[in-house]
Amino acid sequence: MADLDRLFHPESVAVIGIPSDPNKWGGGNWIETLLELGFEGKIYPVSPNMSEFKGLRVYPSIEDIPDSIDLAVISVPARFTTQVMQECARKGVGFVQFYTAGFSEMGGKGSSLEIEVAEIAVRGGVRVVGPNCMGVYCPRGRFSWRLDFPQESGAVAFLSQSGFNAVQVATMGVARELRFSKVISYGNAADLNETDFLEYFAGDPETRVITAYIEGVKDGQRFITALRRTAQVKPVIVLKGGRSKAGARATVSHTAALAGTRTIWESVLRQAGAIEVRSFDELLDVALAIQCLPALASGGVALIGTGGGPSVVGADECEDVGLTVPPLPEHVVEALRQFVPQEGTSVQNPFESPFGFGQSRQQLQETMALIASCHEIASLIIHLEIDTLLHFRGERELSIIIDALISASRDCSKPVIVVLRTSGLPEDVRAILEQQQALVACGIPVYPTIRRAALAISKVLEYQRSRP
Amino acid sequence: MADLDRLFHPESVAVIGIPSDPNKWGGGNWIETLLELGFEGKIYPVSPNMSEFKGLRVYPSIEDIPDSIDLAVISVPARFTTQVMQECARKGVGFVQFYTAGFSEMGGKGSSLEIEVAEIAVRGGVRVVGPNCMGVYCPRGRFSWRLDFPQESGAVAFLSQSGFNAVQVATMGVARELRFSKVISYGNAADLNETDFLEYFAGDPETRVITAYIEGVKDGQRFITALRRTAQVKPVIVLKGGRSKAGARATVSHTAALAGTRTIWESVLRQAGAIEVRSFDELLDVALAIQCLPALASGGVALIGTGGGPSVVGADECEDVGLTVPPLPEHVVEALRQFVPQEGTSVQNPFESPFGFGQSRQQLQETMALIASCHEIASLIIHLEIDTLLHFRGERELSIIIDALISASRDCSKPVIVVLRTSGLPEDVRAILEQQQALVACGIPVYPTIRRAALAISKVLEYQRSRP
Repeated sequence: MADLDRLFHPESVAVIGIPSDPNKWGGGNWIETLLELGFEGKIYPVSPNMSEFKGLRVYPSIEDIPDSIDLAVISVPARFTTQVMQECARKGVGFVQFYTAGFSEMGGKGSSLEIEVAEIAVRGGVRVVGPNCMGVYCPRGRFSWRLDFPQESGAVAFLSQSGFNAVQVATMGVARELRFSKVISYGNAADLNETDFLEYFAGDPETRVITAYIEGVKDGQRFITALRRTAQVKPVIVLKGGRSKAGARATVSHTAALAGTRTIWESVLRQAGAIEVRSFDELLDVALAIQCLPALASGGVALIGTGGGPSVVGADECEDVGLTVPPLPEHVVEALRQFVPQEGTSVQNPFESPFGFGQSRQQLQETMALIASCHEIASLIIHLEIDTLLHFRGERELSIIIDALISASRDCSKPVIVVLRTSGLPEDVRAILEQQQALVACGIPVYPTIRRAALAISKVLEYQRSRP
Repeated sequence: MADLDRLFHPESVAVIGIPSDPNKWGGGNWIETLLELGFEGKIYPVSPNMSEFKGLRVYPSIEDIPDSIDLAVISVPARFTTQVMQECARKGVGFVQFYTAGFSEMGGKGSSLEIEVAEIAVRGGVRVVGPNCMGVYCPRGRFSWRLDFPQESGAVAFLSQSGFNAVQVATMGVARELRFSKVISYGNAADLNETDFLEYFAGDPETRVITAYIEGVKDGQRFITALRRTAQVKPVIVLKGGRSKAGARATVSHTAALAGTRTIWESVLRQAGAIEVRSFDELLDVALAIQCLPALASGGVALIGTGGGPSVVGADECEDVGLTVPPLPEHVVEALRQFVPQEGTSVQNPFESPFGFGQSRQQLQETMALIASCHEIASLIIHLEIDTLLHFRGERELSIIIDALISASRDCSKPVIVVLRTSGLPEDVRAILEQQQALVACGIPVYPTIRRAALAISKVLEYQRSRP
């Protein structure tokens, strides 16, 4: 197993290749980002065309640097990469992360160049991430290629064959209150590949949930073995790219990956005990559920929230994804009636609860406790219509309601999942993010729709059932 | 067929029942809302307990009003409704909309009360909306029960058995740039029901797309006939509530509706040529597609946008819902290469286009024209990663890109659908809403994910195929 600690926490970084055009992405961006983030290791820019960059001395070659180098970020044009890799090998660099594209994803000469460069690295003892990738984002090490990635560390690792998908998941994660231990964009995987990162994350104490975007694997047997072992110790959530005909065609020109057939992948993932997802939203939704509710038990869900119509649609959505919304016993229904004085309110499961409209803190708590006491119920989905609450009650009262909900959830004997239904307007979105932060901090996962909450729960339950 | 013009555009409105507790929803809310919206008809508050409300004279009974009444909004407690309906009948009121709950959705005495009150109305020539409903929202008539519903009129009608679902769809519509001609929340449908509203919207010149949330129908044969006829003249999009066991149980206590079985509903809707959807998002997504692209043709989609990984996942998502993303002919690929100078860029379908990163207005236009010229391609999905564009280019440059996209779409020989991928953070959401407004105003529908765009397109194509 590759020891990747030095890759994710380098103490000295050489950045090779700084485009003179500031609009062209390259080494300059890495240096600026590391400086801005307060990266604590040493940064050595390398370029034959300048002597200083952002106040740092620039070296003409990596071999001129009077220090050992843990990680070299390479963004020189493809035609220079053989020479640069030879220099890295002579220098005894630990890792290179290779932004440069124009290799096996182009086919022909690109493929042979990739093989040549990888061989130089391997012979010289240098481990390679890429080429055609963005490399490492590790918040604890203050190492990143984007300033808008969260600076706090979290429990989710993401290994991504695509750089843009790494961006998508990391930035979407911010709005879902998910934080990452390590993210790696590894592109064509000429040397280090999905299996190396999977094995490393399996043993990484910072990482509790592993997520992955994979287009193709380099060594199927080794991958399957590693996946099965990893899934036994940590949940592994996989978005497979190239499941379709057009998608598979695209992976070849994207990262030179052979996508494999959809059915083979589905059965490999299922048999290994991994969780397959189909979109970025689903990947984040399941990661959030599994991070917040590691011990979610099988059984029915209770659906409790604002509005009769949304309750009906929500129940349909739960059963669409295989959850059951069982009726509550008659004595519980009788006891619940005291909390819903209004006529025209559905007292059953789904249960239409007047959140924020004349319901006391204690009533909310007793409602949830009563429903949680039913053996038919394994978890509670609480859904609120944020637009209506903000419109009639205002933001301060929304905070009070969420506070009451957090306190009732703490006292509740079953896991609670919250859905904050929104119109999607910016003022709603902002208010929701604030409340979501408070909820997730208390281990309560938050979803924008009942459908997405239900799908995440059903995926987690499927995963629990598959475990020995 | 019922003539409902006077219901949606009343010239004189009586509001019967004003709760003394301002926290209790009731007639006071309607009066305040109508005043605030600048409703141009006359408003007559009715209550035995006060003489003035918001500067308006309050009448002890509807019979004391010295004017004819088009519409009476009733929100008195259920026990007073027999008397109030008798007064409305004697007064010769055209329509009542009946907020009061506690009727057939409660079963037992509630059911017999509902029958009794409806009979009084019918004998007196009064048409009833409800009970247990929110009634009319008609922006052109400045009639509504919520100030946060859009005040501009649009082409979409929504008939909703649920008041909360009417709120959900109307407010979510704002954030999707959808506007409504008329929305009706009709609850228990003691008199006027889904079929009456469907027939009215079929003939309503303001309405181009009909959407519906239905829990159960009162007269199956009449409904099926009306649905078939309506679907021949206008697209009808139906979200059926109570498709599941738990959902069907909930409809009984929600609006006393018998939900019917899922398979019967699916075949009824399909045979009638209606479009079935499964969520609010899907309802709005399809309505937007059909409003913007009434003549979308069958055939492959071209997927053009930012990022190799998102392109792969996007292609998978298109094929997941039955769309094809066909390869482009070799001569087109050759011609496209001039627009993607970078290595590591996928030149095929999906096509990775460097939006906002060194691509000129003319290059964008030529790229789209070239792809649209392929007979394999029937429509173009353009997807942009807004977070990255805002981060590196800023909002002004985003506007310039969107402007170029609108202009290229105008010149494009095939329909264009735009996906603005977002992190979900409020600043992104705000920027997207602004760009979305410009795009939708030019007839270009906008979606938050490729998956949702693809599903909407596939639903519209399915609908087109089902038409004679």
